[in-house]
Amino acid sequence: MSSTIGTLGEFGLIARITARFPATDDVLLGPGDDAAVVAAPDGRVVATTDLLVEGRHFRRDWSSARDVGHKAAAQNLADVAAMGARPTALLVGFAAPADLPTVWAEELSEGLRAECAAAGAAVVGGDVVSSDTLTIAVTALGDLRGVPPVRRDGAAVGDLVAVTGDLGLSAAGLDLLRAGIAEEQPACVAAHRRPAPPYAAGPAAAESGATAMIDVSDGLVQDLGHIAAASGVAVALRQAALRPPAALVEAVEALARAGAAPRSPLDYMLAGGEDHALAATFPAGTALPPEWTVVGTVAEGRGVTVDGAAPELPGWDHFR
Amino acid sequence: MSSTIGTLGEFGLIARITARFPATDDVLLGPGDDAAVVAAPDGRVVATTDLLVEGRHFRRDWSSARDVGHKAAAQNLADVAAMGARPTALLVGFAAPADLPTVWAEELSEGLRAECAAAGAAVVGGDVVSSDTLTIAVTALGDLRGVPPVRRDGAAVGDLVAVTGDLGLSAAGLDLLRAGIAEEQPACVAAHRRPAPPYAAGPAAAESGATAMIDVSDGLVQDLGHIAAASGVAVALRQAALRPPAALVEAVEALARAGAAPRSPLDYMLAGGEDHALAATFPAGTALPPEWTVVGTVAEGRGVTVDGAAPELPGWDHFR
Repeated sequence: MSSTIGTLGEFGLIARITARFPATDDVLLGPGDDAAVVAAPDGRVVATTDLLVEGRHFRRDWSSARDVGHKAAAQNLADVAAMGARPTALLVGFAAPADLPTVWAEELSEGLRAECAAAGAAVVGGDVVSSDTLTIAVTALGDLRGVPPVRRDGAAVGDLVAVTGDLGLSAAGLDLLRAGIAEEQPACVAAHRRPAPPYAAGPAAAESGATAMIDVSDGLVQDLGHIAAASGVAVALRQAALRPPAALVEAVEALARAGAAPRSPLDYMLAGGEDHALAATFPAGTALPPEWTVVGTVAEGRGVTVDGAAPELPGWDHFR
Repeated sequence: MSSTIGTLGEFGLIARITARFPATDDVLLGPGDDAAVVAAPDGRVVATTDLLVEGRHFRRDWSSARDVGHKAAAQNLADVAAMGARPTALLVGFAAPADLPTVWAEELSEGLRAECAAAGAAVVGGDVVSSDTLTIAVTALGDLRGVPPVRRDGAAVGDLVAVTGDLGLSAAGLDLLRAGIAEEQPACVAAHRRPAPPYAAGPAAAESGATAMIDVSDGLVQDLGHIAAASGVAVALRQAALRPPAALVEAVEALARAGAAPRSPLDYMLAGGEDHALAATFPAGTALPPEWTVVGTVAEGRGVTVDGAAPELPGWDHFR
């Protein structure tokens, strides 16, 4: 009989999993006590939390356990980077049915570990409980290295609007999976399974004087809309600056051939979430850090426009 | 039609909930951005996370939403106190079915807020998602105020073993609920619904030189067993020092009258979890801080004994 987390037991599973997590210099006390202790060198800690629920945020037949680990870590570490902070630590709550194969939990842990390593962070603690619904709760911590946090409400009229990271690939990859043609454009499917946030670009933007920044998790228009609303300004995007990458164009073509009625490549870039790109505003004239691309400007008014018009895009709400 | 979180929507629910959470001096940036920013005055942050799953950790017919909020916060804040730290902040992930009444989420938030206030902490962030299984993921942060963290592995032969807080009341309260006789001993039922960890006693123990400390969440013998194992010592408890409170004695009598085959009051004190008492070891001769009671000593060997013998008590494993 192959091992399940039920036969292994709570403490056995914890021992099996935590053995995989190496420490970094920020880890003053790792897993195994009542709580972890993490360095917060500048006297402040950035903290964010997200839940991933099977069937809502991932499917076991579409993503491997390792993919889910990467994604769960990435979406939280990206939130830390979006404040301009360097990710330092991850805590992971894991709720799963007792019949879950142990190897699934081990592979999840490997994904968490690897994504943390990519961001320079470490898994420092967690919890394991039984539940009918496979659920992963991740909290990420980060260090601001002396800079002010880059909030959503600092954009000013005249600022540049810039982005870095993938836009639309994850959503296109999800549609390819839904259409059963994942093999048509593996790069998009990979982006859905394992988003690759540009972690270093967050702190770099903070150091370059970014006035506002956000993790693009719900779609570029929606997330820039949060900056616009919080800052009391409008964001004016230029379509010509949003050039779809070849993989996205090819994915849309494949979806069209399959009769999957896709949106345009631009729509994917504007509305597709879960790539965990970063979007930020900078004072006009700022020499942007590498990998940031100007896509528009901050104007008077409210909301987000593309070439002067409000885009017609479906939103995303976790309960509607 | 009364409001549900599905009709209110994700962002509506978040707005409704976060309005309830006041800041403290430690909150440098509260809910509403990609991440919160919390003070970590001594350059380190204590962090711990727990999941509560409906049907496993609480029942909606046995605990009010406010009770669940108190309990979810308390068990994490107690872990912070058990490191010798002052709790500063809470992050809360909330997964719930769309048909959950909005008022339940609001009452949960009120419980979280009130328990944080009791510990001096603030709710600084969270996440709201849809799930078939009502699940609450809590992460607590804390500040060590310059003292070393009190770990599990520092107990030394000859140390005093001391406890503070309730022991056994929560488990007896749960058995009263199971037997349908909650009214027989409301104090125990209240202790189950809303444990009252002695938050201030954790930092006080650290300042008094505690060599090891743990939050009693799984039962005194099991949790002291973790200290014994981590420290490479034995813990010798004295039964005479573990005097059951009147409420516990009365609860056991009521359970006996109901034919609910209870354990003895001492068994509840030794094996009952979820009171979130604190247990710690101190060098012999330490003047214990107020509210701490000596219940034994640290000896050579391994495991936990009561008057020299190994107690026969069932363990608790979340998957077995």
